[in-house]
Amino acid sequence: MARHDDPKGGLQDLGRRVVKDILAEKNPDVPLPIRTLANIYFDEKSGLVKLGDKVSHRTYLNIAHTRKFMQTMLVAAECKKIIDQNVTTSIRDLYYALKHTIPQTQENTFEEQAESDPILEDIEAAMDTLRERLHLQADRKGYLAGPLAIRDTGDMIDAARMGSSGWAIPSNVEPEIIEFKDCTADFVLVIEKDAVWQRLNEDKFWRKHNCLILTGKGQPARGTRRLINRLHTELKLPIYVLADADPWGYYIYSVIKQGSINLSFLSDRLGTPDAKYIGLTTQDVKTFKLPSQVTIKMNQGDIKRTNEMMNYVWFKPAPWQKELTHMLEAGHKLELEALSSKGIKFISETYLPQKIKGKDFLP
Amino acid sequence: MARHDDPKGGLQDLGRRVVKDILAEKNPDVPLPIRTLANIYFDEKSGLVKLGDKVSHRTYLNIAHTRKFMQTMLVAAECKKIIDQNVTTSIRDLYYALKHTIPQTQENTFEEQAESDPILEDIEAAMDTLRERLHLQADRKGYLAGPLAIRDTGDMIDAARMGSSGWAIPSNVEPEIIEFKDCTADFVLVIEKDAVWQRLNEDKFWRKHNCLILTGKGQPARGTRRLINRLHTELKLPIYVLADADPWGYYIYSVIKQGSINLSFLSDRLGTPDAKYIGLTTQDVKTFKLPSQVTIKMNQGDIKRTNEMMNYVWFKPAPWQKELTHMLEAGHKLELEALSSKGIKFISETYLPQKIKGKDFLP
Repeated sequence: MARHDDPKGGLQDLGRRVVKDILAEKNPDVPLPIRTLANIYFDEKSGLVKLGDKVSHRTYLNIAHTRKFMQTMLVAAECKKIIDQNVTTSIRDLYYALKHTIPQTQENTFEEQAESDPILEDIEAAMDTLRERLHLQADRKGYLAGPLAIRDTGDMIDAARMGSSGWAIPSNVEPEIIEFKDCTADFVLVIEKDAVWQRLNEDKFWRKHNCLILTGKGQPARGTRRLINRLHTELKLPIYVLADADPWGYYIYSVIKQGSINLSFLSDRLGTPDAKYIGLTTQDVKTFKLPSQVTIKMNQGDIKRTNEMMNYVWFKPAPWQKELTHMLEAGHKLELEALSSKGIKFISETYLPQKIKGKDFLP
Repeated sequence: MARHDDPKGGLQDLGRRVVKDILAEKNPDVPLPIRTLANIYFDEKSGLVKLGDKVSHRTYLNIAHTRKFMQTMLVAAECKKIIDQNVTTSIRDLYYALKHTIPQTQENTFEEQAESDPILEDIEAAMDTLRERLHLQADRKGYLAGPLAIRDTGDMIDAARMGSSGWAIPSNVEPEIIEFKDCTADFVLVIEKDAVWQRLNEDKFWRKHNCLILTGKGQPARGTRRLINRLHTELKLPIYVLADADPWGYYIYSVIKQGSINLSFLSDRLGTPDAKYIGLTTQDVKTFKLPSQVTIKMNQGDIKRTNEMMNYVWFKPAPWQKELTHMLEAGHKLELEALSSKGIKFISETYLPQKIKGKDFLP
């Protein structure tokens, strides 16, 4: 499937192929990459979760496909219309804009958004493009502060002068919208939790350590993952991830690093294989003499999940096997806030500087 | 209970009273406002949900209170320490900072955050102050754009030049942190959904209609409600709320307007009784000729909730009774995105201008 850096062109190609099939009295056929686990693999060379080359065919004259074929055409046409109008909208708006009763029938084009969302992902995968390039917003929730100047649709924004809020990372950070103008930072610290980000921003950690601090507020939204990818590939900044020492924190790191199964067709744009894990780890309890009360006993779900993760290719490197084994043996996890037991500034004045100086990272 | 605009002074008073009791060999006693429904009322004069004057007493020499008394002293002391250090932290950090085993016992000060959170609310209510003034962060998630210049801890931020993101509303918007420097807007449009906010920001609705557009992303966080309150009381801006035509949207409006039961002791700082409801309503379906497919059938929970709301004092005004009755009779609700069925720019170019021009608001 050719990559369309021109998604409008891709949509037009799709339309033209269907029209050509119809004029030739052939059964119109839309080839779609298969997006299930069976067609996913870990690409050792790039370090990314990738989509394989298995393709399914959605054809009009197959009664099991006809409704989805109609929906695919509607979504593709609406995407082109949105691009032509040069506006951006949400996937919920897309659903509402397309929902109608087909004339002279009792049938609605869509019954609920759960029908239109996967069709859109089909089109993203088929066009090998990002939703954002189809002018559709994903959710947004990240923040960034530090010496980075950007231009956003004509406005100049200096992320070093954004007070207590930081720059709100928009849903679409593609170069057409977000241009990097100037950056003097040495690295990017990606922080799982906004509360920890706020703590570090208040201490102006980014100024003392000449870095950017960024939070995704939990699992980063697509725009935030894409921004991390751009900061690394375009500005050559090392990426260090700071998350809770628990299966969820390690999973967040793995998605930032090698992409997710669900969006595997976008891994090269959303993943950052060179990212390093700075902490927290369960081994930090001993290293930093944390009191035992701040650890949290693992529950059955944590143990099961950790065992699963030990079998993932990307957690096979020895330092990760050691950490995951240590976690299971200790039987506890811990959160970033556990560092507060050593004082509120411990994270910014001791923990992070020591980790960065000693290059004490997990791969 | 005296209001402490100087929360540090309030904490010191609390400590001194306890020390005085101990020195006088009296049972130390912390009076706390009762924060249950039994002590809540709707104040017709101010239009706010308020806390009554019933008080409970937490005493040290009552075995049922001793643990909570100890916890209250710990939280109060930590709040003073945080204020003294002039740092801000999260309620989760507060919990971790205070959690420890009491020397020569097996007992922990706190077992989980669910123990420290209500103690903090007790202290907020007892001091009649905001958590933010105790240097504790609440969650944050709102955005604002339009002709408003603010100063945030030394940085000047112009919300009219914030590109596609807008200004991220911080968790603490108290005047010590957020100073309003300049504002030429005529009103504030508060929007339930971020996707709709982004649509209006892209159309630069705030420029055409000389207003501020603000979203709380669902139920606004404390900081966002406090900002709405400050924009109205200090800058005298009318507040118009745009939410889904469903019980949840109407509830969001009611919390913005008259405060919430849970935080009733803060209603005069978080509520804005003069706020007006601009839409969406179920009556808009007819007025704006929306296609019937975009309505959503009410479920049993919606119907139950609507009937409850009809009995709330603040939904007693005739226009609200009419709308809620209409909703129940029509048996459907609808979301803001339903307006997209009339075209993506319908909301910014037809719906909102017509409502504003005709002053077509619910009270």
